[in-house]
Parts: sequence; C-alpha cells; structure tokens
Amino acid sequence: MNRFEKPERIRFSHCDPAGIVFFPQVFVLFQGLVEDWFDEALQIDYAELLGPRRVGLPTVALNTEFRAVSRQGDAVRLSLGLERIGRRSFTLTLELRGAAGELRVAARQTLVSTDLDTHRAMELPADVLAALQRFNAEAAHG
Amino acid sequence: MNRFEKPERIRFSHCDPAGIVFFPQVFVLFQGLVEDWFDEALQIDYAELLGPRRVGLPTVALNTEFRAVSRQGDAVRLSLGLERIGRRSFTLTLELRGAAGELRVAARQTLVSTDLDTHRAMELPADVLAALQRFNAEAAHG
Amino acid sequence: MNRFEKPERIRFSHCDPAGIVFFPQVFVLFQGLVEDWFDEALQIDYAELLGPRRVGLPTVALNTEFRAVSRQGDAVRLSLGLERIGRRSFTLTLELRGAAGELRVAARQTLVSTDLDTHRAMELPADVLAALQRFNAEAAHG
Amino acid sequence: MNRFEKPERIRFSHCDPAGIVFFPQVFVLFQGLVEDWFDEALQIDYAELLGPRRVGLPTVALNTEFRAVSRQGDAVRLSLGLERIGRRSFTLTLELRGAAGELRVAARQTLVSTDLDTHRAMELPADVLAALQRFNAEAAHG
Repeated sequence: MNRFEKPERIRFSHCDPAGIVFFPQVFVLFQGLVEDWFDEALQIDYAELLGPRRVGLPTVALNTEFRAVSRQGDAVRLSLGLERIGRRSFTLTLELRGAAGELRVAARQTLVSTDLDTHRAMELPADVLAALQRFNAEAAHG
Repeated sequence: MNRFEKPERIRFSHCDPAGIVFFPQVFVLFQGLVEDWFDEALQIDYAELLGPRRVGLPTVALNTEFRAVSRQGDAVRLSLGLERIGRRSFTLTLELRGAAGELRVAARQTLVSTDLDTHRAMELPADVLAALQRFNAEAAHG
Repeated sequence: MNRFEKPERIRFSHCDPAGIVFFPQVFVLFQGLVEDWFDEALQIDYAELLGPRRVGLPTVALNTEFRAVSRQGDAVRLSLGLERIGRRSFTLTLELRGAAGELRVAARQTLVSTDLDTHRAMELPADVLAALQRFNAEAAHG
Repeated sequence: MNRFEKPERIRFSHCDPAGIVFFPQVFVLFQGLVEDWFDEALQIDYAELLGPRRVGLPTVALNTEFRAVSRQGDAVRLSLGLERIGRRSFTLTLELRGAAGELRVAARQTLVSTDLDTHRAMELPADVLAALQRFNAEAAHG
C-alpha cells in the first residue's frame, strides 16, 4: 500500500511529567501529517480547504494502540496509508515508528467531510475524492 | 454501573479554526477527569502516585467514537465508568455529553501500570487495586 | 483594585518533563480566567462575542515574570485586575498565587478589539466598554 | 548579531476559533527553536541536558509584542539571538516573521539554569556557558 511518510522529532512540549510523550500529542503530530499529506501528496491546499472553501474534516472514529513509549529527543517516523474511500468519509491507517523502525503507535482514523457552516456531513469535494483515488492508484501500480 | 461525573465547559483554547473542539483536546479533558476520579472517588492522590511513588499509568489502547461536535462555550458533562480490572491494567469507558444529555463522544481506554524509572509494566499497587474494586462494588450495591 | 479570582488546580497535562508547569500553559490558564471574567463579572457572553458577534480580542503585548514554579497537583489561585481601559484596547494584570498566597507568576497583558473578518483593530463594542468601566467603578466604591 | 533561524509552518493545531495563531502556541514554537538551537548551533544535546543531566532552563521573564497575526498555512520564519549571558541565566531575543520578512512577534525571554531535583537556580554548566560565548563570538567575527 502507498504510504506517505515524514520524519518527526519528539519535543519537550510533547512530553509529560513521566518524561514520555503525552498521548494526545501523538494525535496532534498525526494531524500535522494529514495536513502535509494533503499539501504534498494529494496536492490539495489544506488551509484553503478548511478556510475559504469551508470544508471540514472532523474525526468520527479513532482506534489506537500504543505499543511503546517515545521520549524527548527521539527521532521518529510518521506514516499514513489510505485504507478506505467512501463518498462522504475516508479511513486512514497511521503509524509512529522509532529510529529502528519498530512500531510504537498504530491508529485507524475515519474523517468525514462536513460543511463548516452547518457541521453537517456532505459528499467529499470532487477534487478531494479524485486525489484520494489517485493516491491509492499510485500504490497499486507503484 | 457506577459512573464518576463532572461538569466541564468548552473553552476557547479547546477549539480549532472550524470553531469546534479539536479532538485531541477531548482526551486532555478526559485525562483531567481521570485525575479527579483518583483524587475524589478512589481517594488515591494522583499527583503523588505519578510523582514521589513513580507509578505511571500510560494508555495502551484507545477506541473513540465522535458522534456530535461541541462548540466554544458549551456546558458539557464528562463521565467515567470502570469496565475491567486486571492485575496490571484496567479499562475505562469515557463519555462526553451535551447539556441535553445527548452522547457526543464515547471512548474506551486501557491504562497500564508501569514503573516510571523503567517504563515497564508492573502489577497495580495494592491500594490502587483495592480502590478500583471498591469503586465497582459501590456500583453493585448502590 | 477590584480583582476577579478563581481557584485552579495544576494538572498533569500542564506539566513538562521537568515536572513543573510548562510556561505557555500558564497563558492558557489565564485565557480561561479572562473567559470566566467576561461571563461572570462583566456579564458579556464571551463565546457569543467571539462567535456570532465576530469580535476578536487578540493579545498585542504581554510582559510576564515567573517567580516560582508550580507542580502537578498544586492548588493555585488566579486573579485578574483591569489596569487601563482605552477606546480600542485594555490592559489586564494577571496573577497566579500558590496556596499560601505567595505570588508565582505576574503578567501584564494588553488585548485589542478587532473585527474577526478583517483582523483590523476597531473600537470596543459599547456594551463591553460599559462593562469594563463598571468593573473598575465597583472597585472604587467597594 | 548572530541569529539562529528556522522556517516553520503554521498548523491547524496552532490556530484558534478566530482562525489565527492562539498566542501561547507562539511560545511553544519558540521553545522548539530553543531546542534546535541547543542541538544544532550550540552542539549541546538538549534532551540529555534536561534528562540525564537534570539541568532545567525555566523561563523567569518574558516580554512579548504581537504586531501582526499569522494564519493557518502561513510559512513563517523564526529566529533567535543571544542578548545577554550571565553566570546563572541568559536572555534571548526571539522573532517570528512572515514570508515577506515582516516582523509579527518579537519577544525577549530570560532563562535561568536550575537543578531539576531542587528547582533552585545554579550556575550554568561550563559546557553550556562556553557554547553560549562561542555563539556570540561567531557573531562578532562573522
């Protein structure tokens, strides 16, 4: 499967008094990955989508397994795959891996397309749907 | 089932440019609920547990369903139930409900007891285990 | 001087790997205090002001002195005074004190009224200006 | 003066319901810049300093002027200069500039060296002091 990847560094501000990543910060990191994926892989301007275009992408389901801790200063690798494309929603698989490639966090996240004025679900915009399909087609052929 | 409840208010700082709660902030709110539950219901000092006693309670599994959005200024209700007590871990059910009682977020979170010096799993401290069992016993009789 | 006060508890999520409050979190706590001050003391609905009324209150100047650390679990006291009222802006003095009343953080913060559609400065809405003047008048007579 | 610079992107998670950066997030970004400055310019491992070496660097004074807003998606430039080196503390000048180089946020931040076990101020470690002096010497000669 096609996966979009980014290196990331665990910051002081991600960590808690236990000296390890405070788990909600992992979702903030994954959110940044989704933004980069839109901008760089899907070629859809994420800030424009949520700003002027008024398309929301709230999370409706999120399953996460935390297998190993990350510490301040750790160089980690984030990656994203596209597991399912629906008419109004899509499902991502997200991973955070350590420097040796070991899986530390695995998540499955479903995002739904909404109208930001009403917060009601709506069909994915045509350009977003096409870009999602193209991303997975590259995987099949690549 | 015995549930521990707290009112909460959605703050400006919880919300994103879409004007609704940024979903990782829901987990920060639930974390605060867990702290209050330890201090008030379990009668275990949470700050002392994670500080001087060096017992960690990292999350190892988290499944969440987001059914409805919350907006800045919303009065909401958080609640927590104890679904399972193991020797080294326990599983909570967490809910965020709106003013009319409607379920907006439902999560199931498993926390494991660790030694904060090694970050290895260990048995739950005896006083914590007893307090968890007491909490559910109150439910059965209450 | 009239001061608006609130008790607050230092949370796990406010603290850093050094076990003390990560300083930007102090500003998040003060932001919550400003929201409560609007709702409770000024009787202006803060969420409505920034939402439907489209009035922004961004910070333009902030001077802070951190005198003593706060730790996870600490019961603290936040307070707010209104030092200056201008036509477009106002200046607050903010304090965080420990349980014994000792001053830990002292800040002076200037907020300016803006139109949220253009982010340009504008005169304070009449009801906000009147409420600010009333707050300080109570101080003089109280 | 020698300045350490980094490009940064304004993320969805940095922004508030007004669609602009929530000001405490600017300090989180500056904190990341300080970490990179230690690792890359000073050649002092920041995570090791605060972790195994138990040296804290809390902020004791912070003056900030916010001149212009930043929006989601903005490419910005962060920079750091070293204004003063004391025996126990040092003072940074921090800037956030927009794509056209315009100054948006200017801060002056004083950090003090502490023993993380007692949170008491102590002299800067010799290698840190030497690295700070070297950083400014490069400026004078460069």
